[in-house]
Amino acid sequence: MPKMKAAVFVEPGRIVLESKPIPDVGPLDALLRVTTTTICGTDVHILRGEYPVIKGLTIGHEPVGVIEKLGSAVAGFQEGQRVIAGAITPSGYSNACLCGQYSQDGAGTRHGFKPMGGWRFGNTIDGCQAEFVLVPDAMANLAPVPDGLTDEQVLMCPDIMSTGFSGAESGGVRIGDTVAVFAQGPIGLCAAAGARLMGATTIIAVDTVPERLTMARALGVDHVVDFQQEDPVQAILGLTDGRGVDVAIEALGTQATFEGALRVLRPGGTLSSLGVYSTDLRIPLDAFAAGLGDNKIVTSLCPGGKERMRRLMSVIASGRIDLKSLVTHRFTLDRIEEAYELFANQRDGVLKVAISV
Amino acid sequence: MPKMKAAVFVEPGRIVLESKPIPDVGPLDALLRVTTTTICGTDVHILRGEYPVIKGLTIGHEPVGVIEKLGSAVAGFQEGQRVIAGAITPSGYSNACLCGQYSQDGAGTRHGFKPMGGWRFGNTIDGCQAEFVLVPDAMANLAPVPDGLTDEQVLMCPDIMSTGFSGAESGGVRIGDTVAVFAQGPIGLCAAAGARLMGATTIIAVDTVPERLTMARALGVDHVVDFQQEDPVQAILGLTDGRGVDVAIEALGTQATFEGALRVLRPGGTLSSLGVYSTDLRIPLDAFAAGLGDNKIVTSLCPGGKERMRRLMSVIASGRIDLKSLVTHRFTLDRIEEAYELFANQRDGVLKVAISV
Amino acid sequence: MPKMKAAVFVEPGRIVLESKPIPDVGPLDALLRVTTTTICGTDVHILRGEYPVIKGLTIGHEPVGVIEKLGSAVAGFQEGQRVIAGAITPSGYSNACLCGQYSQDGAGTRHGFKPMGGWRFGNTIDGCQAEFVLVPDAMANLAPVPDGLTDEQVLMCPDIMSTGFSGAESGGVRIGDTVAVFAQGPIGLCAAAGARLMGATTIIAVDTVPERLTMARALGVDHVVDFQQEDPVQAILGLTDGRGVDVAIEALGTQATFEGALRVLRPGGTLSSLGVYSTDLRIPLDAFAAGLGDNKIVTSLCPGGKERMRRLMSVIASGRIDLKSLVTHRFTLDRIEEAYELFANQRDGVLKVAISV
Amino acid sequence: MPKMKAAVFVEPGRIVLESKPIPDVGPLDALLRVTTTTICGTDVHILRGEYPVIKGLTIGHEPVGVIEKLGSAVAGFQEGQRVIAGAITPSGYSNACLCGQYSQDGAGTRHGFKPMGGWRFGNTIDGCQAEFVLVPDAMANLAPVPDGLTDEQVLMCPDIMSTGFSGAESGGVRIGDTVAVFAQGPIGLCAAAGARLMGATTIIAVDTVPERLTMARALGVDHVVDFQQEDPVQAILGLTDGRGVDVAIEALGTQATFEGALRVLRPGGTLSSLGVYSTDLRIPLDAFAAGLGDNKIVTSLCPGGKERMRRLMSVIASGRIDLKSLVTHRFTLDRIEEAYELFANQRDGVLKVAISV
Repeated sequence: MPKMKAAVFVEPGRIVLESKPIPDVGPLDALLRVTTTTICGTDVHILRGEYPVIKGLTIGHEPVGVIEKLGSAVAGFQEGQRVIAGAITPSGYSNACLCGQYSQDGAGTRHGFKPMGGWRFGNTIDGCQAEFVLVPDAMANLAPVPDGLTDEQVLMCPDIMSTGFSGAESGGVRIGDTVAVFAQGPIGLCAAAGARLMGATTIIAVDTVPERLTMARALGVDHVVDFQQEDPVQAILGLTDGRGVDVAIEALGTQATFEGALRVLRPGGTLSSLGVYSTDLRIPLDAFAAGLGDNKIVTSLCPGGKERMRRLMSVIASGRIDLKSLVTHRFTLDRIEEAYELFANQRDGVLKVAISV
Repeated sequence: MPKMKAAVFVEPGRIVLESKPIPDVGPLDALLRVTTTTICGTDVHILRGEYPVIKGLTIGHEPVGVIEKLGSAVAGFQEGQRVIAGAITPSGYSNACLCGQYSQDGAGTRHGFKPMGGWRFGNTIDGCQAEFVLVPDAMANLAPVPDGLTDEQVLMCPDIMSTGFSGAESGGVRIGDTVAVFAQGPIGLCAAAGARLMGATTIIAVDTVPERLTMARALGVDHVVDFQQEDPVQAILGLTDGRGVDVAIEALGTQATFEGALRVLRPGGTLSSLGVYSTDLRIPLDAFAAGLGDNKIVTSLCPGGKERMRRLMSVIASGRIDLKSLVTHRFTLDRIEEAYELFANQRDGVLKVAISV
Repeated sequence: MPKMKAAVFVEPGRIVLESKPIPDVGPLDALLRVTTTTICGTDVHILRGEYPVIKGLTIGHEPVGVIEKLGSAVAGFQEGQRVIAGAITPSGYSNACLCGQYSQDGAGTRHGFKPMGGWRFGNTIDGCQAEFVLVPDAMANLAPVPDGLTDEQVLMCPDIMSTGFSGAESGGVRIGDTVAVFAQGPIGLCAAAGARLMGATTIIAVDTVPERLTMARALGVDHVVDFQQEDPVQAILGLTDGRGVDVAIEALGTQATFEGALRVLRPGGTLSSLGVYSTDLRIPLDAFAAGLGDNKIVTSLCPGGKERMRRLMSVIASGRIDLKSLVTHRFTLDRIEEAYELFANQRDGVLKVAISV
Repeated sequence: MPKMKAAVFVEPGRIVLESKPIPDVGPLDALLRVTTTTICGTDVHILRGEYPVIKGLTIGHEPVGVIEKLGSAVAGFQEGQRVIAGAITPSGYSNACLCGQYSQDGAGTRHGFKPMGGWRFGNTIDGCQAEFVLVPDAMANLAPVPDGLTDEQVLMCPDIMSTGFSGAESGGVRIGDTVAVFAQGPIGLCAAAGARLMGATTIIAVDTVPERLTMARALGVDHVVDFQQEDPVQAILGLTDGRGVDVAIEALGTQATFEGALRVLRPGGTLSSLGVYSTDLRIPLDAFAAGLGDNKIVTSLCPGGKERMRRLMSVIASGRIDLKSLVTHRFTLDRIEEAYELFANQRDGVLKVAISV
């Protein structure tokens, strides 16, 4: 039984590189030989035991790779093709998918319900911080990489870019909108980039880490607010002449960012929430206009599926945006524990790490 | 200076019938001779001092009447026409109105911002529990009553029906949806009726007052849940085989109804909130799926304007729905203090009172 | 090799009952034992050679049946379950499906493009006017029939009801809308019923066959216009005080109905087209307001997939609408040629025939 | 009675500069002193007698100016403010405006219906190729110019930019879309720029005039197709690997561009039509997929109103796009007849002329 190396959750505090069997390929699956992957903030929650997964699970949900073997019922792809798969892997055939709720597949007929819906890689099935990964429902999830794009160019597509952009999309950003983005980690940066791509003309980013604020400007943000230097709500109301913003994007998952995003909305504005929260939230009565502000609060889970990946890679291929600069550090799979250590502690101005396999 | 009788807020606990001057008609205004009006739950909040208005203000925001006099710049209407005006009176020319946010007019160029946006009658200007009322921005707000409809038939259009229906509309109810409505006061009843009109095929109403549950069934609700008899969240999950609802409408304004509505949503479902809250709200982490459920929380303020009123009266005229039965008690304006007493204390199974002038 | 009876296209003018092998079940397929099916107007186009299919193809795309055998990769269903499948059978995993274009599957990665998109049964693969039918991509397409519903009650779901309702849905019918429906065959009748379900308050149906106009009234249409008695455009403008309609639904596929639907639109109104056209169309300059009327022309192909079928069956189960009365004649499969003869010639006031197997 | 100079339609073939009285200011009006204006393709249709207006009408619908005098009922503005007004001047208070159909005001209660809906300037009332122009319903239509923007920077907002962008907006362009634009006159150029602003990643522009194709590239188009050199339908299908485009924008108003736009659509794609047609249109059966392609045809009239203008000026102010380069020639009002001669004959590579007053 052939073996492979994989980053495995052992217990809270320990994700380690182990040897595991290369998985068997079911009829609807594809086996990918992973070439590049990365570590997500959610993986750090798993590492710390804050998000529970079973012991022995391979972590990771952002694969770039090559098709090694296709399941017997899979058509439309060839072994040897370079592909990516999204962090969320919709089946395509669940009731959720068939009414456009692709990220909430787990609620459908065939899968039990879990809070994180259609997220399977490194959550309910083995993930891609490994030499090989099994892509479930492969026909819905394998997305060929266009010629000329490198692994690092498409590495943000499976999660960070898809999630970040969905913050702008679910917010319904329109030409001429004013948009505030609370937190400028990789997802917040992509949310700001997505708002810019959709035509927002005043984009205000809130964070305090200098590298992030610099990166925000580089990605096209119009104003940055350092929340250590000034109250972001007051600063944003000031920048908008008291009008507030059309769309506020929350990209961290805390009471402070959620509440700030709510407070800067104009009447009728939308709070688009991307963060993974770990506590109850409070909606202050005044910030909610007692329920009479015609406001919306919208949450989004990373959109997946091969069509989403095709579109995101077309954004990269068009040159409209360059996210390679989000990769600040590089490691081989052999050194992934080191990479976790750096990333989990946010040392050395790290934004994203690339793990080559 | 001619005088009229008007129900005036004197101090917390006292709304009394007084004599006041009939107002002068500005160029954009119309003076209505009120023929029928009603009392809203919000008026009771004013009575109790829970919602602040200035002393001496005439209360009431649901007018049916006859045009007595038109402002000098008002065209398109004739004196003597029977009309209604919505509780919310959009100007038409504010930036909010010109981007479709008709209920949030107050945020526009010409009016200062107030939490309740475009609500003016009985809030920032004199209301219609009086012999006469001045309709501002008359060209946008006067809606002629179709021949053959009585005052009582259209009495719910200005607020209750418009607000209730907007709960279903903002929730995006579609053919085949399952919808839960939390609280079956007049607005919740209209929300359920609106959900039925839009094609929901399983409508579940939650309340405990027998008259309200009976009325809910009469308006087309499929299941009623008495929250004193059973836990409404468990009951609704049971009625939907654990699937949850597509849309949950909150129609009261409390933590319990808000939280219940959130807990019964399917992944991807929408909480449509109509209530006027009086405290901060708490979003429990699990009920919010940690922000990952692709859910929406949408708030709506009563849509107004003459086109909205025209549409609502066309619903009545078509016979699709009959809301006259919501009027359980009738008073003349002279006896309005009595009407307040009955309504504020929810005595005698009261749903709505009609005040004839 | 076991055999079955099937209605097969032999040559223009001849669809005959033949004996064919029961098909083999591929890994993603399900074999249904058909219990009831029907004949569609499109089948008559095939019979007449107006819509080309290959010789030897089994016709029919509206199956009600029982699962006889499941493909090796199919999970979530049991043999013996009563199910229906839609006329259009989306794969779930095509790019089209993964961006919500479920009826245009043929445009996706795995299937060549054909004008009728995702329509496969009785078009590109064998259909269901037979003792058995193979359902492709079974996990996306098998929809269990709720207990208590008869075959005839759900027989309109796979095509007529799904197509008709989509006319109202794609038209964006809202509460209070005025809707005209041109032609009241089974699809037009369902379009009118769909408009009523979505809250239209003035529904005007155009046809000339007395049985159809009677059925239209029974399904909730407000006004009927006999185009042999009066000009439908003038009649509709008269009924709407010259305002025109919010949504006009075309349900036949001719220049006259298309043009009539265009001419009765209000500025900003939508023409929702359901018909299968057989000639070029002409858009008269004045009817199109020279391109300046903010109008929409929207076409829809029958939505399919198990979630769509689930929703439509929930409409039937709720009792909101009863389409059994559309079945005017009944035959056994043995007599299907007779049924074609009756239906193709529209004799005896036929609306739909039920074929029991 | 004070006089002013104005470009007046005298008879087909003659628009001449005449002396006319400065108009009186009604209660809802504002009198603008025009500082800059331009000539539109529609004005050339008027000049040639192809679009009928009454003799003696002042032409022009794209004003930049200074408020000279406000009507007695107008609040919220000051005399002396620099403003623009849109080509379409919604009242705000019509039924059309109050349901979001701002450009089709003429269909409302107060105005008779005309094919071009809400277009008043230089159509049903005097226009702005004059020293002064009366802005109707001023509170809905006066949009203050932000400090720092020149007349020429905002000169495209009232019509060209608003119309062009609406082609992308009505088409529903999304991140990652492929968009074709047929014709690259000023409106087509702005449509392409709008598609880019909304996130289209493959934009293909069709024209034949070298200056226009060059300008298209400068505004961010990815591919240009010279229809004199190659068949644009084949070229576009080639550029999209046979997939077709998500959105095709028609920006001229001819059968050839309309039909080409229809033929390049993917199943489910949208044809967004901006052109003013002068003949009946033909929809070829195959290009329309016999009505089964889930396609949309959407027409848009230039959105107006002060909020639209505010948003467009914010796009200019943000530096996202620079449309000054569309102004290729400059004239004073005294020489406007010369400007018409140049523009009507499309001499000297003219795109737009600026007329300073």
